[in-house]
Amino acid sequence: MFSVTILGCNSAIPAHGRNPTSQVLQTQDNSFLIDCGEGTQMQLSKFKIKPSKISHIFISHLHGDHYFGLIGLLSSMSLMNRIQDIHIYGPPLLKEIILLQCKASNSDFSFDVHFHELKENAVIAETNKMLISCFKVEHQIECWGFLFKEKKNPRSIVAEKVKSFEIPASFYEQLQKGDDYITKKGTIIRNEDVTIANEIAKSYAYCADTIYDESLIPIVKEVDLLYHETTYLKDQEAKAAARFHSTTTQAAQIAKQAKVKKLMIGHYSSKYESLDSFLIEAKEIFENTELGTEGTCYYV
Amino acid sequence: MFSVTILGCNSAIPAHGRNPTSQVLQTQDNSFLIDCGEGTQMQLSKFKIKPSKISHIFISHLHGDHYFGLIGLLSSMSLMNRIQDIHIYGPPLLKEIILLQCKASNSDFSFDVHFHELKENAVIAETNKMLISCFKVEHQIECWGFLFKEKKNPRSIVAEKVKSFEIPASFYEQLQKGDDYITKKGTIIRNEDVTIANEIAKSYAYCADTIYDESLIPIVKEVDLLYHETTYLKDQEAKAAARFHSTTTQAAQIAKQAKVKKLMIGHYSSKYESLDSFLIEAKEIFENTELGTEGTCYYV
Repeated sequence: MFSVTILGCNSAIPAHGRNPTSQVLQTQDNSFLIDCGEGTQMQLSKFKIKPSKISHIFISHLHGDHYFGLIGLLSSMSLMNRIQDIHIYGPPLLKEIILLQCKASNSDFSFDVHFHELKENAVIAETNKMLISCFKVEHQIECWGFLFKEKKNPRSIVAEKVKSFEIPASFYEQLQKGDDYITKKGTIIRNEDVTIANEIAKSYAYCADTIYDESLIPIVKEVDLLYHETTYLKDQEAKAAARFHSTTTQAAQIAKQAKVKKLMIGHYSSKYESLDSFLIEAKEIFENTELGTEGTCYYV
Repeated sequence: MFSVTILGCNSAIPAHGRNPTSQVLQTQDNSFLIDCGEGTQMQLSKFKIKPSKISHIFISHLHGDHYFGLIGLLSSMSLMNRIQDIHIYGPPLLKEIILLQCKASNSDFSFDVHFHELKENAVIAETNKMLISCFKVEHQIECWGFLFKEKKNPRSIVAEKVKSFEIPASFYEQLQKGDDYITKKGTIIRNEDVTIANEIAKSYAYCADTIYDESLIPIVKEVDLLYHETTYLKDQEAKAAARFHSTTTQAAQIAKQAKVKKLMIGHYSSKYESLDSFLIEAKEIFENTELGTEGTCYYV
């Protein structure tokens, strides 16, 4: 199980008390920051989320509303004497921007920063419990989505059982995957006699800023939670397309066609003070939609 | 008359609901932004100060808590289709940082940005009603203070009087300065018969981040309002010096020796949640001290 907390849900300009884009995905072991608009460090503090647990930061693209808060967050981590390494994934120029600002302040971070340039759709990071891959999305500039998949093995080993059947440790990984064990004498030890089923591994797809694009459907197929931007309401389809953004209806259509379990929407244009119509319009197409709002924690 | 509003009064890390440094000086015609820590654009919006009136931005130095909000503010001005030019004053690398971030987003501002590199103590900007000069202060990296002086003439011309005495327009500037006029026949027209006294021109000095430095005294001498940082309480004098910052007592000593009318303090270390002792300690040395707090507007 993991959770996704929205730190910022507005597009472009902060407005109506809504901040630019940032989300944090929290597992038991790690926190993963997804985009980092201006004010992200204040939002983390407001919602009592510890920056020290953030091990990986994923930046979708270099429009300011998705990364202007990164340098401030890193600087504050350094001022708080962080020592753990941090991994940052993003488009090429990100590293240059951060390092130029370090040079200007004649300072270095108190911890090691590993920059990883996004280049192609691929698995980019792995922790004990999570596999993270990136996928290209269609926006005005180079832009990436991120797919988080829990790595849970389907089955857990029952220690006393494997011991009593004298199954060697070298076979444990196969047991966790569901294989039966065959003894040297040819006896079959059935998997369900030595393991128990685990929760199913959960998944979260973050589609960043994107035009309506059906090529995303196979990538986000059947995820437990899909974040798809809805910068505009459905009557603004032409404007959305011109600016490489999406509408409520379009986000819901992607969710429906990809048969995801739940859709979360966000990245609302500053021209909308009320968000009620966003939820209503998306639900018309895909009932299990949630309005992404700041401070809300979505459990997956 | 003008006013100074505090947008951020904390040092280094935003904490206890306090933001990194930024102030806005407002005259009837222009607004001048002084430093621009992360979240400045949100603070402007919170305190209902229009970014569109900001004509000049002064950045004291390139520690992040004094300028990380600049790129976000400029980007938002652009997204709001600003057309008026803006003038930015700061250390050399500032321009490079801003332009690199424009390049990364493949965008340009909707208005002209004029970067002015600070090089020596000098008058750097002038408007109808204000003269602004910069002065070097002692900090960990290159750092500048700013002095704002109203340009008011000491006296205003009374139209019907100069007409009745047939004083030529070419002499009006001298009349405003207080000179008497001598007619071709040698008659002296006394200045006070054709002009009236004006309010005295007011001044504001912003000393940025600085170690205790008595060489500031002649520069800020007798200003109406002096902003001097007080990162620490008086018991932290050694730490303050090591980090090129000042204490309450030191700020108050500068104010006292410079015979300023009023002292405003700020740039409080995040280690202090309550600010009560800052005011008490400064007032022990210089009674007319005000605690700089966010959203407060100081009239000069």
